[in-house]
Formats: sequence, C-alpha cells, structure tokens
Amino acid sequence: MSPQPTAALAQFVLSSRPGDMPAKLVHEAKRAVLNWVGCAVGASRHATVNNAITALAPFFGPPQATVLGRHERPDILHAALLNGMTSHTFDFDDTHLKTVIHPAGPVASTLLALAEHGPISGREFLHAFALGVEVECRIGNAVYPSHYDVGWHITGTAGVFGAAAAAGKLLQLSQQQLVWALGIAATQACGLREMFGSMCKPLHPGLAARNGLYAALLAKQNFTSSEQGIEGKRGFANVLASERDYRPITVGLGDSWELLENTYKPFACGIVIHPVIDACIQLRQEHALKVSDIGAIHLRVHPLVLELTGKTAPRVGLEGKFSVYHSAAAAIIDGAAGEAQYSDEKVSDPEWITLRNKVQAVVDATLKEDAAHVAITCSDGRILNKHVLHAIGSLARPMSDEDLEAKFSRLCAPHLSTERSDALISAIWRLDTSSNAAQLAQLTVPSA
Amino acid sequence: MSPQPTAALAQFVLSSRPGDMPAKLVHEAKRAVLNWVGCAVGASRHATVNNAITALAPFFGPPQATVLGRHERPDILHAALLNGMTSHTFDFDDTHLKTVIHPAGPVASTLLALAEHGPISGREFLHAFALGVEVECRIGNAVYPSHYDVGWHITGTAGVFGAAAAAGKLLQLSQQQLVWALGIAATQACGLREMFGSMCKPLHPGLAARNGLYAALLAKQNFTSSEQGIEGKRGFANVLASERDYRPITVGLGDSWELLENTYKPFACGIVIHPVIDACIQLRQEHALKVSDIGAIHLRVHPLVLELTGKTAPRVGLEGKFSVYHSAAAAIIDGAAGEAQYSDEKVSDPEWITLRNKVQAVVDATLKEDAAHVAITCSDGRILNKHVLHAIGSLARPMSDEDLEAKFSRLCAPHLSTERSDALISAIWRLDTSSNAAQLAQLTVPSA
Repeated sequence: MSPQPTAALAQFVLSSRPGDMPAKLVHEAKRAVLNWVGCAVGASRHATVNNAITALAPFFGPPQATVLGRHERPDILHAALLNGMTSHTFDFDDTHLKTVIHPAGPVASTLLALAEHGPISGREFLHAFALGVEVECRIGNAVYPSHYDVGWHITGTAGVFGAAAAAGKLLQLSQQQLVWALGIAATQACGLREMFGSMCKPLHPGLAARNGLYAALLAKQNFTSSEQGIEGKRGFANVLASERDYRPITVGLGDSWELLENTYKPFACGIVIHPVIDACIQLRQEHALKVSDIGAIHLRVHPLVLELTGKTAPRVGLEGKFSVYHSAAAAIIDGAAGEAQYSDEKVSDPEWITLRNKVQAVVDATLKEDAAHVAITCSDGRILNKHVLHAIGSLARPMSDEDLEAKFSRLCAPHLSTERSDALISAIWRLDTSSNAAQLAQLTVPSA
Repeated sequence: MSPQPTAALAQFVLSSRPGDMPAKLVHEAKRAVLNWVGCAVGASRHATVNNAITALAPFFGPPQATVLGRHERPDILHAALLNGMTSHTFDFDDTHLKTVIHPAGPVASTLLALAEHGPISGREFLHAFALGVEVECRIGNAVYPSHYDVGWHITGTAGVFGAAAAAGKLLQLSQQQLVWALGIAATQACGLREMFGSMCKPLHPGLAARNGLYAALLAKQNFTSSEQGIEGKRGFANVLASERDYRPITVGLGDSWELLENTYKPFACGIVIHPVIDACIQLRQEHALKVSDIGAIHLRVHPLVLELTGKTAPRVGLEGKFSVYHSAAAAIIDGAAGEAQYSDEKVSDPEWITLRNKVQAVVDATLKEDAAHVAITCSDGRILNKHVLHAIGSLARPMSDEDLEAKFSRLCAPHLSTERSDALISAIWRLDTSSNAAQLAQLTVPSA
C-alpha cells in the first residue's frame, strides 16, 4: 500500500535534517532567497503594497517583523502577507517551470517573519525553505495541469502548503500536529486566475504565506483538521483539480529536490517572451544596433507567446508586460527588460511606439517554449538572424550567480544605497553560516 | 442583456436604504441576530476557540472589538474570525435550507466588529445584515448543489461574499470599490467539507467573516481585483462549481429577501434528526413517559438520516450529534437535545446506552426531509405512535420568538447571569431603535 500523501509529507519534513542537504541545494536555496529579497525590496513602494498597508495598518499587532524595504513593523502574520505580496508584484520572482509555481514567496515570507519572532540560524532557515519548496512543488506536481487549467493560481493554492510545512518545521510540530497543519492549509487554499492583471495576483502568495503560518500556529495549539487534507475524498486534490496523481508527492521523497528545478527571470515580464528578448539583446550587442538601424523585426515564436502576450498597443506599463512587441522594442532600445522598461512612460514614448510597430510576429508550432527566432531587416538592407534554442533563465541556460547579483542590485537601487545592497548580497551568500537569519530583514530597511 | 451578477449585487447593496426593509424583514434580522449571539456565547469557552485564541493572541492588534462571551479584545479582523468560529462551533446556528448555508455567522461577525470600530445605529446594522445575507444566499443559490456536492463548505465559500458586501455597505464603498471587494472576496473563498468533524469546520465561517472584512477594507483603499469575480471565465462560479445559473442572483433583487427563508435549530445536532427528536419529545410529554416505560423505539426516517447520522455507538459528545439513536434517547430521558445532551458524559452513561440500544431505525424513502414516524412499544404493551409532518424549526413550523428566547437563555446560562441574558434579549429585540449597535457586544462580556 502506498503511503498517505499528507502523512508522508509530514513525516519527511519532520525527519529531515540540515545535514541531509547536498551542497548544491544549499546554494540554490541562497540563489532563490537572493532573488526573492530583490523582488520584494524592488516592489516595496508599489501602489499595491501602499494600498494594502494603508488598509491594514490600523489592525497590525505588536511590532514583530519587517516589511522588506520599508519602515513599518507589523506582527508576523501581516509581515508574511505583505512580503509574499511585494515579492510577486513585479512578476519577477522565481518559477518552478513544471508547475508554474513561484515557490519562494509563500515559503520565504513565512520563514523570515518567524525568524524575526524567535531567532533561528541561517542553516535552519535554508533547510526549512528547501523543505517548504519541496512540499508545495510536489503537491503542485500532483495536480498540475488540471488544477491550473480550471482556473486556480497555483502559487497561492500550493504555496499555502509550503508555508505551513516550513513554519511547522521551525515550530517543531509533532507528526500529528503537522498533519493537522497541512489540513488547515488545505482548507484555506485560494486564489483565482481571474484576478490576473489586478492587485489580487500578488495578494495570492501573500495569502498563502499568512494562511500557511496560521495553519502551523493553530496546529501547534492542537487545533484539529482532517488527517487527509490533501488526498481525502473531499480534500484539496479531489475538490480543486479534475485530475490528480499522488505518486509525484511520495516517489523519491528525500532523494530528489524540486528546488533544483527552480529558475529565475532575467526579464520583468511573462516568461514566454524571454527568448525573443534574449535574441534581440544578443543582436543589439553583436551588431551595436541603434534604433535608426532598424527597418523591421520579424519574430517566429511559440504559440503561447501570442496567446498570452499578443498586446500590440499596450496603454500602461503593466500591459507592456503582456506585449511581445513592446518587449522586443525595449530589448533593442535599452538592451534590457527590467521594471524600468515597463513603465507607463515607456509604453507611451513615441520612439518606443514607432519601433514596436515595426515588430511582426508569426507562430511556429515547432519551436519549444524557451526558443525563438528573430530576424532584423536593417535600414541598409542587411538581414540579421538570431535563433535562441534555450532562453537565458531557462533550466538549460540558468542565470549565473553574477546575473542574479546584477538583477538584485538593479531592483534595490531605487530604495537602498549601493553599500547596503552589496551588504545584503554578501549576507545572503553567507546565510548558512549566520547564527540569526533575521539579520537579513533588518538590512533591507532603508536608513532613516 | 442580463446584468452582470457582480456589478448588479454591488449596485443593489449600495442603492438599498434601511427604509426599504419590510417590517417582517427587520424582525427576522433580529431573530437571526438573537440566535447568532446565543450560539457564539454558548460556545465561547469551547476548546476550539480556546486553542485558537492561545495560538493567535500574540499577534492581536489594538483592542478594538469583543470576542462574544469573553474578556479578550482583539483587533476587528481577529474578532470577526473568532466570533464567526464560535457561532458555528455547536452546529446550532441558523440554516438557509435551500443551500444549507448558515448565513448569520460570516455576516454578523464582520458587522459587529465594524460596529465596535466606528459606531453605527442598530437600524444600519440590521439593514447591512439583511443585505449581506441576501448576497451570500443569492450567490449560494446560483451554484448550489453542484458547488456543495464537489466538496465545498458553502457557509465559508459563499459567506465571504456576504461579509464583504455588508462591510462594504458600512464602509460606504463606491460602486467600483464594492465590485473590487466582491472580487477580493471571490479570490479568498475557501473551506473544504473534508474538514467536517474537526475544529476546521467552525473555522470556515470565521475565515469568511475575516476575509470578507479584509476584502472591503482593501477595496476602500482602491486595491483592485477582477470586475467579474463571480461570473468571470476563471471566476468563483466557473472554478468552484460544475454547474451554475446566474438568474437567482439578479431576478427579483430587492423584491424578495432570502433572510425570510432562514430557519433556526431547536436541537444541537444535524438537522436531519430533528423530526425524530420532535416526535419523541411530543410522545414523552403527551404520555408522561419515563425511561422504565420504554420497551423499544421504532423509527421510520428519511434516507439521509441513516446516511449522515447513523452512528449506533458514539464514543464522544460530538459523535452523539451524528447518532439518531443517542438523540432519540436524549429526547425521551431529558425531553431536550441541547448542547448539554451531547456531552461526553451523556454518550457514556449506562442508562443512556441502554435506551439508545432499544432504538431501531428503518428508511422510508416516501418521507420528506422534515418528517419522521416514531412508534414506542411500552413495557406494559401499549404502542404509542407519532407522525411528524414538519419538524419544529422547519420553514413550515418555525421556532417562535419565545422558543428562540428559551434557546438563547439555555445557551448563555453557563456563562452569563440570568439578568445579563435577559438584558441581551431585550437589547436585541430593540436593536432597530439603538443608536449604537456595538452595545450588544459589551453586554455579552461576563462580569469580572
């Protein structure tokens, strides 16, 4: 008889030891944390979080934890919610490609808040982080794609389990209590894809972080739930997915790590556009292209590109993220596609509009999702071709540590001094030797 | 073209005026509030709420609102959560029979917390309450039964809309903001039937109350969501139900009131057992029956009775609520089936066990859900019959105001003095003339 998924995950989380982590897993956890902190600090003054803090501050509990990049100190539940929100606001966080879960937000936001509440070492932090990511991604693997296809934002719905498991590990729950915590997480799973394009999208990982923390805190006080929150007849997998396979939850548990399948976005937009941007930036660099050189840009792309990001005339910055045309123009003009290239100003800039109107795209169903072909016809008649087989940021061509550092620095630049930003990078690379993981949070708070 | 359900509900809520309420609606709102307060005070010391408060108190915000029947004063978000929880803990709250939604908990818990935060009149309170119940029950009507059948606890999933709508009314949201609030509610809808029998069941209306309040508070600060949270392609009704019909949301809006279809439980157990208990109590009274008179008790019941409440040998009080055998014994021995009759002691009492073992039940598919037939064979050979066509508490035979008062007094007796309990009853009947609805909350706090 195969083990019950809920009980098996609880047992795995509780029996795992920091020493069980291979070195490359520890390093990947640091890379994920680096990317997560950068995204959170980068978006820390966005209207989404400003509005949320204005609404919720009158109900904050004791000053227990940090909102990354800001001065407010709410209770740990609100901190988990707000950091989960900011880290997804730019759509620039990490991606578990098998499930399109953005794994770090729900788990790290919960853990850092808990670390501020009662000191834990950096090594414990990284271990609990890897465990939380393992739990959320394995549950995601069990229900993807039917769960996502029906309309669930899987980062929210699977993320709550990761947050509960990670918090449960730090809170030293018993096996019985962690089974309850996963059940309490299951019954709070939420987040609809209908909300994409609104402030509710980044709210979802925030809710996952807070609700998972709730689950672990309640279970610690013997608040009971079903013991089959995942696989029960009316549990998570049966109610929120039309098809499910529990084997990916238990097979190889402890031997393989989902965090090693995590990827990081070099560009602040939908991941399907990344191969096109990559190709355009390469052509720009190789041929020192200027806008005046460009006659036309011809794209051959995977079908999803036009389905998800086919906006020809974006009106605001957020819509630019769903426009392969604007993104190609950004890559040629700025040689970049960071948050700065998706501002309201850029999508309304006449020069940018002229160039994006020179972009034509056709679908090529033979291309992989991380591939694209770009042909630029120059004003002087030259035709420049670039075929990207695996976009930068894909599993086959991951961002290097230096790439991640550069991304981090760009995200923090509007909010933190270079010295502070560099200190954070160093602290994250040394996190496994830190006696107090919470120091990380303090470093993100701008000097008064 | 028929109106969009989300926008139509928002417009209805914002345009409705207290004067639009017919007198019988005002009275029914008071009856629902009376029942809700009684249930919440009655369960205020239950392990479910004790465990939750122990877990959450370290994160409470400023002392803004009352946990009914207790001395703690959390922020309004936690108060909404805790009162939503206590009012459902005994499974003794109100029932909208068409959808099996327990309507009062999510809506009233949110409203009373808000009333404590910024004074509102009793009339505004009752009006917002009726509006919230209208919204949650109409959304429930649109997705019932497929939504419930797949495994959603509809009191949680529909309740969040009622809480958001009611809070949005008091917070004077704009049309745009209330549409957003309903969307933010939609994306937080949660609660699995898998949790029935655990502490998570009463957690669900608590989450609905708190999450609905969150939704309204966020929308008030222009936190955006989809504008079609209910009917969007990947919105609530499409994702959480396999079948749906939007007409019950908009047809007759403002002309009919779902609150007038609300019912109240005379007995603290699953509603399907109520006809049997009713019949046994009537036989006991009519024939002055004593336990020693009973030879055997023969029940003919609706099929759901044995499906849901067929436990022949309950071991703890909670299991007694799912035993038609224990419940029939309680009706004969005590002439009642309140919380006191479902204690661990009663289900283990030898006299009670002997009597419940004399109960036999057979299914009769021709009976309606609120009907039952009971035949008692007495030790002296007499056979006493009682056929209940509509159980007390059904829409056809509603509990009278005096019945509700007696139930309220029994629920409050372990926690409040008779004077205080009577004062609460008076205050609720006079609520529409009160200038400050929050006074209700203060009256439930036991004297030091």
